Amino acid sequence: MSLTNASPEQAARSAKISSRTLATLPTDARNVALDAIHNALAAAREDILAANARDMEFAKKASAGGELSASILKRLDLSRKGKFDDMLQGIKDVRALEDPVGRVDLRTELDDGLILHRQTCPIGVLLIIFEARPEVIANIASLAIKSANAAILKGGKESTESFKAISTVISNALESTEVPNDSIQLVTTRDAIDPLLELSQYIDLVIPRGSNELVKHCQRKAHMPVMGHADGLCSIYIHSDADMVMAVNVVVDSKTDYPAACNAVETLLVHEDVLDTVLPAVALALVAKGVTLRCDQPTKSALSKHIAQDQAAMLQTATETDYTTEFLDLTLAVRTIPVDSQHPYSAVDAAIDHINTNGSHHTDAIITASKEAADRFCNGVDSACKFWNCSTRFCDGMRFGFGTEVGISTNKVHARGPVGLEGLMIHEYRLAGNGQGAAMYGGSGGRQYTHKKLPFA
Amino acid sequence: MSLTNASPEQAARSAKISSRTLATLPTDARNVALDAIHNALAAAREDILAANARDMEFAKKASAGGELSASILKRLDLSRKGKFDDMLQGIKDVRALEDPVGRVDLRTELDDGLILHRQTCPIGVLLIIFEARPEVIANIASLAIKSANAAILKGGKESTESFKAISTVISNALESTEVPNDSIQLVTTRDAIDPLLELSQYIDLVIPRGSNELVKHCQRKAHMPVMGHADGLCSIYIHSDADMVMAVNVVVDSKTDYPAACNAVETLLVHEDVLDTVLPAVALALVAKGVTLRCDQPTKSALSKHIAQDQAAMLQTATETDYTTEFLDLTLAVRTIPVDSQHPYSAVDAAIDHINTNGSHHTDAIITASKEAADRFCNGVDSACKFWNCSTRFCDGMRFGFGTEVGISTNKVHARGPVGLEGLMIHEYRLAGNGQGAAMYGGSGGRQYTHKKLPFA
Repeated sequence: MSLTNASPEQAARSAKISSRTLATLPTDARNVALDAIHNALAAAREDILAANARDMEFAKKASAGGELSASILKRLDLSRKGKFDDMLQGIKDVRALEDPVGRVDLRTELDDGLILHRQTCPIGVLLIIFEARPEVIANIASLAIKSANAAILKGGKESTESFKAISTVISNALESTEVPNDSIQLVTTRDAIDPLLELSQYIDLVIPRGSNELVKHCQRKAHMPVMGHADGLCSIYIHSDADMVMAVNVVVDSKTDYPAACNAVETLLVHEDVLDTVLPAVALALVAKGVTLRCDQPTKSALSKHIAQDQAAMLQTATETDYTTEFLDLTLAVRTIPVDSQHPYSAVDAAIDHINTNGSHHTDAIITASKEAADRFCNGVDSACKFWNCSTRFCDGMRFGFGTEVGISTNKVHARGPVGLEGLMIHEYRLAGNGQGAAMYGGSGGRQYTHKKLPFA
Repeated sequence: MSLTNASPEQAARSAKISSRTLATLPTDARNVALDAIHNALAAAREDILAANARDMEFAKKASAGGELSASILKRLDLSRKGKFDDMLQGIKDVRALEDPVGRVDLRTELDDGLILHRQTCPIGVLLIIFEARPEVIANIASLAIKSANAAILKGGKESTESFKAISTVISNALESTEVPNDSIQLVTTRDAIDPLLELSQYIDLVIPRGSNELVKHCQRKAHMPVMGHADGLCSIYIHSDADMVMAVNVVVDSKTDYPAACNAVETLLVHEDVLDTVLPAVALALVAKGVTLRCDQPTKSALSKHIAQDQAAMLQTATETDYTTEFLDLTLAVRTIPVDSQHPYSAVDAAIDHINTNGSHHTDAIITASKEAADRFCNGVDSACKFWNCSTRFCDGMRFGFGTEVGISTNKVHARGPVGLEGLMIHEYRLAGNGQGAAMYGGSGGRQYTHKKLPFA
């Protein structure tokens, strides 16, 4: 890793060159580099924590002056119990993953002695832009090396001292390995993001990990693909036949397990037949957990008789904007789904319409006893993740069993939903023959392609 | 299909709405629509050819006035022998392909009664921009319906009458099917391309099928991903141990089978040890086929003694630009690859460097008897397709056995190389539980994820 004072263009160009060497290294060489990074960071713990303490000192002043939020201060602090060890363990976890490079996923005989195969390969150069958390740099460097991608890292300025200390350690550790030093570059230059986003000749993919504003900025400015999601506006629809206990558990978990997460629920849609049965139970449980409800007229009127006088402030009237707001807090928009008795699935369809129109295509759930209703909902909703009778909070790479999470994508190409190492790969085709030309095939008297599927092994 | 006078935004919005219905239709409903289109086009042959004749009349005048090339005129003519029948057969071929929708490619038990699966689904709305060939509209409409994607089509203005006739027939045919009429929209409004390229809220992917300029324009302007390639600058490297006959056959086929194709070879790299042996045989065969050679000094001097006096004009001195030019014609740039005797693979590495620096990451080939040299070449070259001892012309969806070709992509995400129906798909995750919340897992005493891989069936 180089801590570069190079221009964005120089950094990107040298990352591109290194990426070709990195792409040809065997699994072992990449794993050895991960071991070297792990051990070097473990040995340099004191120096890194001292650098982090300097960042914290600055940040505390800024926080006292109101320029920095308490939550950023907390994320910045690498001396919090377990945080450094978690960072080290993260490198070991990534090292332990199966090598994603060179997996053959298609093999075809085009003709006798003309064999095609497709195999996974790294994308090339990643630009990863993230905010204050200093341990992210070690995590991202590990993912990049494991997947044989070069990476340009641009972190938040609050972590500058920590980043410099960590990147110096990683850089020295890589010196003794086959992984080219320039494959991981830390860019600290102020205002480097916009020039980097234009260098599509060197950078193949941008992964912004941070605020909605950061992601939207990248989506607007980047000349190369951007992977990720700006908004996480997740909804849950409670169908007429929903089990009351299940509805309470799923909605409470989805809203309160970690309200600031992108996979927390923001809108609750309720079938009009259960406004007086399931909804009050759900609402009381939410209010008990401190959740404010922004309700439309029918749900508010149904709930007003259940909410105690001293909690009346938790029951508010929704505006239209509430249904397109990602609260990231203990606030939930609630809306009735009306029924057209002429059409058996009118309510499910109305919920689908609401979600496709107002949601962010991230994760949406239905609570119902009916497989038919669940299937109709999952088929109709245009989201990366469609859940039935479980919390939206399960939308997560670790929970899905990917071993790691690069991010959650709401893109409609390449990778969608929680993204593991697989999302950092693309494929290439290799064809081996013994002198064949295309003119030999087809027409009258020409050879015919056999197109025989072959085993992958 | 609607032939729309709607604004680009109205067309895109209605395509988006239709795309959700289309995405939920079963295989049969989509195949029935393909049959209906096929039969309706077959029945309307005379009307369509009459419309095409009107386009041809205009075009011939433009061609006579020098405003339209003879090759566009030829592509425009739907009355050429076999062309209409090929268009009809193309619809049947697409119908016969396996349904790409709803294929499960991952299934995991996260916990007892909490089952995750991933399945393929359509991308949503495609914007397909193409040039004069009128039969392309039927091909693209078929691919879109088969893959359950809505599509907005924008064709070249020279084919307007043909497009209108074909789209009217398709529109009437779809009326009797479950496929929503708005799922395929033909936009004829002049200058509609740029506004469409900004509608990322409705359009998920752009597929430009046409000139380099069209592709580059889309890549620059589009707010959504663009699939395709601008340049096809393919190279072949002849290694020191190449078989002479094989080299002749592969290079001649790669250059002359169809010189205007993106997978034709444009640069020939030759190991310096075979300048006087393999190269002359290859060069004489090329010259006999009418190929002009643009050579560097060593290859020109090696060849000058072999080329007959009356063909001396076919042997020219290369400029640097020739090595970055896609000739699309019977012209080939030739360059020597020098050897550093200290390093066993110096020539292969120099060829790789030349290709990665000057090529377009499309298709590149090596001719060698050595598996080691071939592997080193294929590992080092950063291209979608890497070929060993066979023609670059094999880079093609039909030849690869995909049954169809949506295009050839040099992108580093989503799809790379020849793209079949698979490239029009993305995936979604579905999770089914019985009331689980994320807070139940982990920590001390919490449940543990099982992450058990399940069979797909």
